[in-house]
Amino acid sequence: MTFPAPLTGVVPPVCTPLTPDREVDVPSLLGLVDHLVAGGVHALFVLGSSSEAAYLRDGQRRLVVESVAAHVGGQLPVLAGVIDMTTPRVLDHVASVTAAGADAVVVTAPFYTRTHPAEIARHFRLIAAASPVPVVAYDIPVAVHTKLPSDVVLELAAEGVLAGLKDSSGDLSAFREVVTGARTRSDITGFSVLTGSELVVDSALALGADGAVPGLANVDPHGYVRLDRLCRDGDWERARAEQERLCALFGLVSVGDATRMGGSSSALGAFKAALHLRGIIDCPATAEPQVPLSPAEVEQVGKYLATAGLL
Amino acid sequence: MTFPAPLTGVVPPVCTPLTPDREVDVPSLLGLVDHLVAGGVHALFVLGSSSEAAYLRDGQRRLVVESVAAHVGGQLPVLAGVIDMTTPRVLDHVASVTAAGADAVVVTAPFYTRTHPAEIARHFRLIAAASPVPVVAYDIPVAVHTKLPSDVVLELAAEGVLAGLKDSSGDLSAFREVVTGARTRSDITGFSVLTGSELVVDSALALGADGAVPGLANVDPHGYVRLDRLCRDGDWERARAEQERLCALFGLVSVGDATRMGGSSSALGAFKAALHLRGIIDCPATAEPQVPLSPAEVEQVGKYLATAGLL
Amino acid sequence: MTFPAPLTGVVPPVCTPLTPDREVDVPSLLGLVDHLVAGGVHALFVLGSSSEAAYLRDGQRRLVVESVAAHVGGQLPVLAGVIDMTTPRVLDHVASVTAAGADAVVVTAPFYTRTHPAEIARHFRLIAAASPVPVVAYDIPVAVHTKLPSDVVLELAAEGVLAGLKDSSGDLSAFREVVTGARTRSDITGFSVLTGSELVVDSALALGADGAVPGLANVDPHGYVRLDRLCRDGDWERARAEQERLCALFGLVSVGDATRMGGSSSALGAFKAALHLRGIIDCPATAEPQVPLSPAEVEQVGKYLATAGLL
Amino acid sequence: MTFPAPLTGVVPPVCTPLTPDREVDVPSLLGLVDHLVAGGVHALFVLGSSSEAAYLRDGQRRLVVESVAAHVGGQLPVLAGVIDMTTPRVLDHVASVTAAGADAVVVTAPFYTRTHPAEIARHFRLIAAASPVPVVAYDIPVAVHTKLPSDVVLELAAEGVLAGLKDSSGDLSAFREVVTGARTRSDITGFSVLTGSELVVDSALALGADGAVPGLANVDPHGYVRLDRLCRDGDWERARAEQERLCALFGLVSVGDATRMGGSSSALGAFKAALHLRGIIDCPATAEPQVPLSPAEVEQVGKYLATAGLL
Repeated sequence: MTFPAPLTGVVPPVCTPLTPDREVDVPSLLGLVDHLVAGGVHALFVLGSSSEAAYLRDGQRRLVVESVAAHVGGQLPVLAGVIDMTTPRVLDHVASVTAAGADAVVVTAPFYTRTHPAEIARHFRLIAAASPVPVVAYDIPVAVHTKLPSDVVLELAAEGVLAGLKDSSGDLSAFREVVTGARTRSDITGFSVLTGSELVVDSALALGADGAVPGLANVDPHGYVRLDRLCRDGDWERARAEQERLCALFGLVSVGDATRMGGSSSALGAFKAALHLRGIIDCPATAEPQVPLSPAEVEQVGKYLATAGLL
Repeated sequence: MTFPAPLTGVVPPVCTPLTPDREVDVPSLLGLVDHLVAGGVHALFVLGSSSEAAYLRDGQRRLVVESVAAHVGGQLPVLAGVIDMTTPRVLDHVASVTAAGADAVVVTAPFYTRTHPAEIARHFRLIAAASPVPVVAYDIPVAVHTKLPSDVVLELAAEGVLAGLKDSSGDLSAFREVVTGARTRSDITGFSVLTGSELVVDSALALGADGAVPGLANVDPHGYVRLDRLCRDGDWERARAEQERLCALFGLVSVGDATRMGGSSSALGAFKAALHLRGIIDCPATAEPQVPLSPAEVEQVGKYLATAGLL
Repeated sequence: MTFPAPLTGVVPPVCTPLTPDREVDVPSLLGLVDHLVAGGVHALFVLGSSSEAAYLRDGQRRLVVESVAAHVGGQLPVLAGVIDMTTPRVLDHVASVTAAGADAVVVTAPFYTRTHPAEIARHFRLIAAASPVPVVAYDIPVAVHTKLPSDVVLELAAEGVLAGLKDSSGDLSAFREVVTGARTRSDITGFSVLTGSELVVDSALALGADGAVPGLANVDPHGYVRLDRLCRDGDWERARAEQERLCALFGLVSVGDATRMGGSSSALGAFKAALHLRGIIDCPATAEPQVPLSPAEVEQVGKYLATAGLL
Repeated sequence: MTFPAPLTGVVPPVCTPLTPDREVDVPSLLGLVDHLVAGGVHALFVLGSSSEAAYLRDGQRRLVVESVAAHVGGQLPVLAGVIDMTTPRVLDHVASVTAAGADAVVVTAPFYTRTHPAEIARHFRLIAAASPVPVVAYDIPVAVHTKLPSDVVLELAAEGVLAGLKDSSGDLSAFREVVTGARTRSDITGFSVLTGSELVVDSALALGADGAVPGLANVDPHGYVRLDRLCRDGDWERARAEQERLCALFGLVSVGDATRMGGSSSALGAFKAALHLRGIIDCPATAEPQVPLSPAEVEQVGKYLATAGLL
């Protein structure tokens, strides 16, 4: 389908359900997609960080995009992450996910290598030149260890290289610079500015963002869709209450014991445990080398769901 | 060939010459290998950071290993990097490079994702369990943003998971802990501790390291082989003089203008410019999105070579 | 005067005007205070980071507090920073600034030394036990290189150790955790949660913050007081417009050439240049070893003021 | 006394013994100094990081310098740290410690504030211009969060601004650049390059360093003096054995439980516990807000001492 300019609304980074032996569980994945679509989300982002894209083999990545794109059949846009270290490797993923049906690609700065703003800009220009679909920049310093500079993003938006930004930097001040720049600069049109935050979606929409890409929307899509609607209606008081309910629910990402596992094991393990407890996916396994949650930790996830009215 | 236990000596991380359109230049690669072998190096490490592995597509990586392994035909060990984000993706590279003839694989900690010492240990154990060849750990915090803890490395050495360590952390104190531990612990045998430093190879060998993996050995393999020999002979005064000559030569990695490019563009660009000026490779191109050196910067590389007696 | 519980509104971190030979220019300081009071601010924060407290000798610090406290004579609360590395040194500053008339002290985590959440909590407890006035925590990771954990802040609030938080971390999600915790926990009352941001004051107030401590309020106190008022009135549309005007003005902090000076020289130099251009202080000098702005850079500051309607 | 050009040998950063109520225990301090002098050290460095200078009030700092300078009475040079955030504050400490008898001052880069190489150079120039005694640069990125660039250090050495460098960066490659530069540049004479490492003193001396400033020399000065002597005699084999014995002893810095305290509490607590167990100081208390070692942790310190032959 044609990618909206700008893309707006709730765009969950879709979790990738796995079987016990760590293959993609396609029926569970499509069940999750149905759950998200029923929740009213506006687009789907597969192969993002919350999708464990960094853990999926190339064939698994392709299978995810093919399955989801075929399943939604153009009902709503499917964005696909093409997470890899540098331009040539990203370009191979672009070819793969667009052949599989992705409507847009989501691209980070180079990582592993030492990089530079000039090289980041060159990276995006080369990818946009080769991509048959729009390119969305993915600003995720916690993963790639550089921050996309706001002026570089705006310049690439003006050049038509970028169709949007997914900002997972946590830096709302820099995010605002892009939002305001995209709205006020006459040489930029149709550029979509999306927050990756779970916790300040109301703030981001209030200052002019186009939408949100919250990992927690896997667990509670209805909540984020309600929040988005309340913000668009200018009902800030009820939006804040909904956001605070979601903030409380987000506490589940910390159930994992930090002396025993890293933040990714805990957060992605909790998302999957919640989806499993809610009956949406068949198996809560996360990819290797992540450490699984203990039964007591899963029980805590259940308490968060109960408090949020989701069990 | 059988991987030595421990591997010792000079193990250059072999640069990957590219054609002007950024394909692997196999004749230049084999010419470079001949130059290194003629220089007396003790093993070859392909697909490391200095090889631009982070920039090579999967097919290019396979071509490099196949070409080099076939060319050296068991004369000396070929180690291959399998640089990727997480266990499942690394395992695919392990399958590929060992099918192509690699004698050992070189594995970093997980990156892009948030990780944890327990997950790092799990990562190495899973890879070693699946690998048909020995596993060498690659400690490179500047790229993966975690440091391999010395106690984890020693424990994995004792378990037989790891056959060696390539330490590019720059932290000689932590390196010494592994060197001394590997020598004194009765449950560790044949473990190879290699420094990734260009500048303190004499120091590393003096405190008991088994060898070195210096990127600059692409440019001057004879120098590093002489240095290794002088250290093994206990001729520390002449070793220091040779090391200082190499330190001066290493200044070439900084010729690139830091307002225009990152450290990788400058250092890898300078290595390739030097190989091109010395007539060893046909084209000094680096992979995208790295920024090329200017003619004036290349000229400076030439001056470093001249001062070091290499032109 | 009695410190309000909670403190609310606009609390500028008051710049410290210097003479050309880098002594405190008391008449200019009091003129600046008059300008801020006339602008309608709700309290004053002296000896913060924007006050160049890190650059002021002990005698200069004492002179600042004495002068300002005597001048405002209890009209509005005066908070004083007591920025130093560890508990014993901070306690000496607490004694000094409270003798000089401060109504509250503002305390960072320990810095220079390697620290730990348990030591941070101990630090605040010891200081609160010895301080005759309320203690406000100052979360400024860019300066002290640790982030105050939200759960530690809330626990210390519940214990009565802390009277408030000034959050200059830039992390609005963590800030919200404190705001919501302080409002909903029954064991916390009168705790003041203040953002140190210049750029998302509307967002912070919308999610429930008590006030703001924006360095830019030195230059445009009326703007921030208007913004605060609009937010309290729930007039979010006009609040956003005022905030965006202030965001544009904030661009002045980047006039300094980054190849020639650091971020502090540029930002504090620009604040002082603006105050000088507006006729509020006599001399724009910043403390050593900061690098002064060039005439061309000062001219750019003037353009920002003109655009914002302040010249 | 006249400061040697260059200063060479073992220069312990002298611990500051405290009484149970955290005042400077002058008799214990002088006992420690006697222990160090009896061990054969070549100079004393008071008010460094291992001296808990960051925790000492100004009066305590002055008392330390006065007591030690009077006690040694010119027998050997006394260097004093002047650790503070910026130029004006450091200059006050310079006045204080030189009045108290210091023969040289040891100065870090600015911290707390955001800084820049140009500002760091300006900082050292201003301090040297005002100091009646030589200035030694103190490179300690773990504390001040910037690294002193080698080229800046060498330039300031050539200008006569700096008399030496104490390098606690852990980066032996950069250290070597200064060592080699100081030896080979004709515009630099008498410049002293000292490593702050405990663990690679043999390496540092082998590559040409003038001496070492190891915190562990408080506990075992004889060991470091033997090590220094063996290195100067070119007896590298026995030097390495002595260094490895000291490396094993250094393990005591990690006895503190990392879930309960930070690295400073553990390392400085262990140094003081060791001095107390050896009968050199009266009380092992560390300054606030550091967390004390438990009895079990102190017992472990004792085991390290026993293994090293020091009990």
